[in-house]
Amino acid sequence: MRILGIDPGLRNLGWGVIESHGTRLSHVANGVCTSDGDDLGERLLSLHNQVIEVIAAYRPDQAAIEQTFVNKDGAGTLKLGQARGVALMTLAQAGLPVGEYAPNRVKKTVVGVGHAAKEQILHMVKLQLPGCLPKNADAADALAIAICHAFYGGTQQRQLKEKRA
Amino acid sequence: MRILGIDPGLRNLGWGVIESHGTRLSHVANGVCTSDGDDLGERLLSLHNQVIEVIAAYRPDQAAIEQTFVNKDGAGTLKLGQARGVALMTLAQAGLPVGEYAPNRVKKTVVGVGHAAKEQILHMVKLQLPGCLPKNADAADALAIAICHAFYGGTQQRQLKEKRA
Repeated sequence: MRILGIDPGLRNLGWGVIESHGTRLSHVANGVCTSDGDDLGERLLSLHNQVIEVIAAYRPDQAAIEQTFVNKDGAGTLKLGQARGVALMTLAQAGLPVGEYAPNRVKKTVVGVGHAAKEQILHMVKLQLPGCLPKNADAADALAIAICHAFYGGTQQRQLKEKRA
Repeated sequence: MRILGIDPGLRNLGWGVIESHGTRLSHVANGVCTSDGDDLGERLLSLHNQVIEVIAAYRPDQAAIEQTFVNKDGAGTLKLGQARGVALMTLAQAGLPVGEYAPNRVKKTVVGVGHAAKEQILHMVKLQLPGCLPKNADAADALAIAICHAFYGGTQQRQLKEKRA
């Protein structure tokens, strides 16, 4: 199964694609979609188009995205929410089932503790995906989210099905 | 000039279309795009598709949307931000110039005071757009946002151009 992980952000939206065969994981690709400028609508449209390109290039079967929470920086949360909304909508448009994971869950899965530093995540992502060189910390986070989905995706989707049934 | 006003929201996204000829305004149409269910991505995609339909049906020249701020309900702000991001991206995709207005600015323009009740907005929108019957409070807000853009849109876009130059 091929999984696209997304670490949402307005300026830098990290993405990472992995292959998961049972407990064996391998790296496919990773990168960062960027946007800047004054026009928020144009920035969001640019992110939408870049995510479409990533999906077209790497054809994932499933996707995973980080859950976001409101932090002290309210304006930052709102910006992040807008970028996250566009990412979620783009994944739905591509017909991809999407798993959502809290940041602590992702860290605990990849590093073993819920409060891990960026460097630890980068280190463990490289260790679990031999040969992988994440483009930056956002791309490393995105790969970590994909790894988390490889471990919990099946469970999450069973739970969702049971909840709906 | 035909203006599409949007009052963003995840469950109810109000919209209203008006014609503006100098200081003369007239009502074209209004309504509400709705979404519900468990799957946030599907809800956002549904809103995206509904806004596309409104644009295709009424072919506005410009659009206006309410600025949002972080309030006490952090989770609500995040939901709103995600819906707003998708709306902004959809307007940009349609090539529409978008004005953004703070809620107080909209109320002051339409009602005369910055802290107006929903009923006052509804009343003044009906008064300024003869024959208009807003579908609900969200649609009335969207029409108020369009009215605000009719008054300030020119100024806002001049300022934006000057800022960019």
